[in-house]
Amino acid sequence: MRNRTKKLKDILTSKKLDFFLESHNGLSAKIVEEAGFLGIWASGLAISASFGVRDCNEVSWTQVLDTLEFMTDATEIPILLDADTGYGNFNNVRRLVKKLEQRKVAGICIEDKIFPKTNSFINSNCQLLTSIEEFCGKIKAAKDTQIDDAFCVVARTEAFIIGKGLEEALNRCRAYYQAGADAVLVHSKLSVPDEIIAFMNAWNENCPVIIVPTTYCQTPTEVFKELGVSLILWANHMVRASIYQMQKVAAQIYTQGSVQTIEDKIAPVEHIFKLQNYAELNLAESKYLPSYSPSDKSLTTETKCLFKGL
Amino acid sequence: MRNRTKKLKDILTSKKLDFFLESHNGLSAKIVEEAGFLGIWASGLAISASFGVRDCNEVSWTQVLDTLEFMTDATEIPILLDADTGYGNFNNVRRLVKKLEQRKVAGICIEDKIFPKTNSFINSNCQLLTSIEEFCGKIKAAKDTQIDDAFCVVARTEAFIIGKGLEEALNRCRAYYQAGADAVLVHSKLSVPDEIIAFMNAWNENCPVIIVPTTYCQTPTEVFKELGVSLILWANHMVRASIYQMQKVAAQIYTQGSVQTIEDKIAPVEHIFKLQNYAELNLAESKYLPSYSPSDKSLTTETKCLFKGL
Amino acid sequence: MRNRTKKLKDILTSKKLDFFLESHNGLSAKIVEEAGFLGIWASGLAISASFGVRDCNEVSWTQVLDTLEFMTDATEIPILLDADTGYGNFNNVRRLVKKLEQRKVAGICIEDKIFPKTNSFINSNCQLLTSIEEFCGKIKAAKDTQIDDAFCVVARTEAFIIGKGLEEALNRCRAYYQAGADAVLVHSKLSVPDEIIAFMNAWNENCPVIIVPTTYCQTPTEVFKELGVSLILWANHMVRASIYQMQKVAAQIYTQGSVQTIEDKIAPVEHIFKLQNYAELNLAESKYLPSYSPSDKSLTTETKCLFKGL
Amino acid sequence: MRNRTKKLKDILTSKKLDFFLESHNGLSAKIVEEAGFLGIWASGLAISASFGVRDCNEVSWTQVLDTLEFMTDATEIPILLDADTGYGNFNNVRRLVKKLEQRKVAGICIEDKIFPKTNSFINSNCQLLTSIEEFCGKIKAAKDTQIDDAFCVVARTEAFIIGKGLEEALNRCRAYYQAGADAVLVHSKLSVPDEIIAFMNAWNENCPVIIVPTTYCQTPTEVFKELGVSLILWANHMVRASIYQMQKVAAQIYTQGSVQTIEDKIAPVEHIFKLQNYAELNLAESKYLPSYSPSDKSLTTETKCLFKGL
Repeated sequence: MRNRTKKLKDILTSKKLDFFLESHNGLSAKIVEEAGFLGIWASGLAISASFGVRDCNEVSWTQVLDTLEFMTDATEIPILLDADTGYGNFNNVRRLVKKLEQRKVAGICIEDKIFPKTNSFINSNCQLLTSIEEFCGKIKAAKDTQIDDAFCVVARTEAFIIGKGLEEALNRCRAYYQAGADAVLVHSKLSVPDEIIAFMNAWNENCPVIIVPTTYCQTPTEVFKELGVSLILWANHMVRASIYQMQKVAAQIYTQGSVQTIEDKIAPVEHIFKLQNYAELNLAESKYLPSYSPSDKSLTTETKCLFKGL
Repeated sequence: MRNRTKKLKDILTSKKLDFFLESHNGLSAKIVEEAGFLGIWASGLAISASFGVRDCNEVSWTQVLDTLEFMTDATEIPILLDADTGYGNFNNVRRLVKKLEQRKVAGICIEDKIFPKTNSFINSNCQLLTSIEEFCGKIKAAKDTQIDDAFCVVARTEAFIIGKGLEEALNRCRAYYQAGADAVLVHSKLSVPDEIIAFMNAWNENCPVIIVPTTYCQTPTEVFKELGVSLILWANHMVRASIYQMQKVAAQIYTQGSVQTIEDKIAPVEHIFKLQNYAELNLAESKYLPSYSPSDKSLTTETKCLFKGL
Repeated sequence: MRNRTKKLKDILTSKKLDFFLESHNGLSAKIVEEAGFLGIWASGLAISASFGVRDCNEVSWTQVLDTLEFMTDATEIPILLDADTGYGNFNNVRRLVKKLEQRKVAGICIEDKIFPKTNSFINSNCQLLTSIEEFCGKIKAAKDTQIDDAFCVVARTEAFIIGKGLEEALNRCRAYYQAGADAVLVHSKLSVPDEIIAFMNAWNENCPVIIVPTTYCQTPTEVFKELGVSLILWANHMVRASIYQMQKVAAQIYTQGSVQTIEDKIAPVEHIFKLQNYAELNLAESKYLPSYSPSDKSLTTETKCLFKGL
Repeated sequence: MRNRTKKLKDILTSKKLDFFLESHNGLSAKIVEEAGFLGIWASGLAISASFGVRDCNEVSWTQVLDTLEFMTDATEIPILLDADTGYGNFNNVRRLVKKLEQRKVAGICIEDKIFPKTNSFINSNCQLLTSIEEFCGKIKAAKDTQIDDAFCVVARTEAFIIGKGLEEALNRCRAYYQAGADAVLVHSKLSVPDEIIAFMNAWNENCPVIIVPTTYCQTPTEVFKELGVSLILWANHMVRASIYQMQKVAAQIYTQGSVQTIEDKIAPVEHIFKLQNYAELNLAESKYLPSYSPSDKSLTTETKCLFKGL
């Protein structure tokens, strides 16, 4: 566990620009790890989408927690949880941090909006920011709760999303850093990186900055590297990849009434077994399950029938 | 609810050959429904794989249940649950059926193996069948428990998987039908449909037959139509589609350190929102959330700040 | 299910004064039913206390939901859930109502405070009311969501708790009734029933009133009957009874280092089995589990060993 | 965490006779700790009873796990989980141990019966033992899985319960100890301690013995101390205490239609708050929630309304 938090802390504080890819369940987490990524962004949008519900706290925080547990079980790399607003006030954040550490999640990102949260890309009259004071209380509460000193608390500001501009974003991020945040995440929904560039040019705190280039994805990452960004989150690309192919394959199977020509568009069954690590189970069975030779006379009939089949 | 069970019953008893596609969470269920399929196979293998664990009851039955609830929430079509062995004895089956009906699942398929189950395609010394008597007890218990008389109980025999041959498969399926099964599922892991053909030619009960052409997928479906098969399950193709594309996209993003050229291999963000049905939420917000005009003088300051942002 | 909602509706609308007793899990629910009560108050305070956590949404709403499911499984009488603020905004309330109906809960009581809620008896600077408009939106959303038209939505005002006085309480309750509430719950934490008496004397809507005499418990119930109160909730007496005896018995066993003299202060083990309804299981086993006579030659060895012991 | 496992290990290996008392949720666990007990027996019977269901795996293993998490959250003393048969085969045991360690449970007790388990005091034709080989595989798997080397695995034999006698009990316990068990639990349902005495007199392994004097509770504990028993479990006395008083209080409130005379039979509301540790929350609120003086001019209106009430 300590291993994961330490790695996340190192990734955030290093001078290098790193990349995390989104995952939303144990399967996608394993795939992201196997692809070579250093860490995982457990996206609230992607997790809620995989459940088939909306990104406004329609899943409970314990359902998110259960999902995270499967994700850490399936991987060894650090996972940073997109925890929306922290699912309530400072006290809910405290409980969340305690439970996340038990499940080996390496860090948490909370944003300065009001519960229930509204996805940043959704136009809604519910988009509003909480006060700086209240949000700093959440950050302090999270930091005071963590047992592992390398556990990371990332403070995300939605100031640009709400249309409050650079000064608000800077003020908030400075306050969040002062309150103990290990990094700030500055979100923007422009199709150009202008807000991020303006922020980075003005940011002079010794505090790592994380960005999420979903709408301004066409900007070369070199731009952000030069600006001193610490970490880029590809925030929803696994769930979007899965939707793309599932829609395509479902349509084709439906139209053709057959899977005969679909095999080159889907993974072989063996890939599933490999991702599930059946090899380990086979070894364990040989170690922990009785194996009998037909001549094994010392066994009772009952024992044999339980393990040898009929 | 009644609607879904009735539809499943009709699909099973009709003379037509129908097709269900696998789903493993709310998202994939919605996609399968949108593609036009009449029903969903909630595959134990696919569900466990999506959690990142193995298909041998590493997820608890209530975790499966929670997943099913999201799947029925996201869809209107009938869902048939692959419930392994029923997760225990007849009493566990009773509890399961009760909980599934509350969650609007249309039917259950249980197989004649021992808990914890072993995936049919895994070589293991744990592959063994339960007794006919014990399994018929489970079927009767399930049928006696259901409140909705159209809820379907499918009995799956693993006789061919275990290598017990045609007579065993026929004997078992006849007994299961006598015990009250609404359909039988005959599983085979040959790359040719020989076992299925032999079974169908010998099967003379007025009981629908379901098959799962995973290994013998190259056989044209016309063959099965002529044999009188009622329902074909494409049993794992959504999870395989998602793995295929997630592995591909993850590899490409990792190699390129960028998502610039990935947009045509993933669904747009708007597709996520559409699958989550944000349109309905927008309507509901206009109906249930206060909306204020700037001149609204009758409101208290507190109320305005809660809903208008800063 | 329809049975329970209809009964709750009848209890609320009848001219009689009725009484519900608190329960917090399947066991206490069963005990309350066996004592003869017409319905159950699923108290947020008692449920959180039984989990060992505080009454400020430290348990997630799905953990509450799971608890309610065990409570309806164990009983046949209507259960009214103390759902705090509805665990978020109108949309969280909608999802909650949908899930509660699936679990056979007969009604919901929501209160006009802010998430996360604060227990009414706790002094806190977090005690504040939501706007009337916002809360009416929640009530409408709940009523529009319910499928069973007898499902009851109770609106609870904390106006007296917050110290806002009679006019605020009346205004709010009238608005809540107009918005569709099936009953209003007026809470008071005085040790005398003055606020309740004042409210009832001024209340002239055709809308049932529920009260919770925890602090003013010494007032004879005849007083409330004459005032026209519909339903009294004994809101926390089962959890308090269990704490009382568990503390007493634990202390005695610890001191004596023995259970020799404790048997008359605890229920016999047979009472547990009775409350769990083992009689039903015994019948079911004889119906669904194979039973063999020693001379039963037709059975395979495997079958016998599975059910007869060694 | 390490603290708890170490304490459990010390309790088991010390020459002293110690006592654990049953708990079944966070509340009862807290009460047992406050009474002074060194550890808690998380009884399968009591936990299932508190859910209102039977002790034959009607609750899923993850529902038990969630309960255990609330119990460790509420306490600091070691908790030994009554994990029935391990909820499946060796692989289910491995997953269970991993999850329990994350939730700070100090040890696990598994018994040599078949899943789903049958309560030892229930007459049933389902009472049968698993093979020694299979059970030793479970013990080894558990020991190989634990990360914390002080985590304890207790092997419970039901040999006496099944009526197999002393030799079987001794043979099994010796095998279990050889397989790595940290202690053995020998269960008996006689009303006299004869089986326990016979076992202890014959037991010459350097392996602690745990007993459960439910039926033979009238035997003075000195008898067991002299026999060298390590740990006595008072296995169901908290749930029985709670049933006793809840039945009594519910009956009285129902009969009297009032709670006026009940206050001396139930704990005061303040005891609930004390067990929930509201004192800690009050301190935390003053630390993490903004507090405002009426003259605080620097705050925005929005901020004030969020924390000061109307």
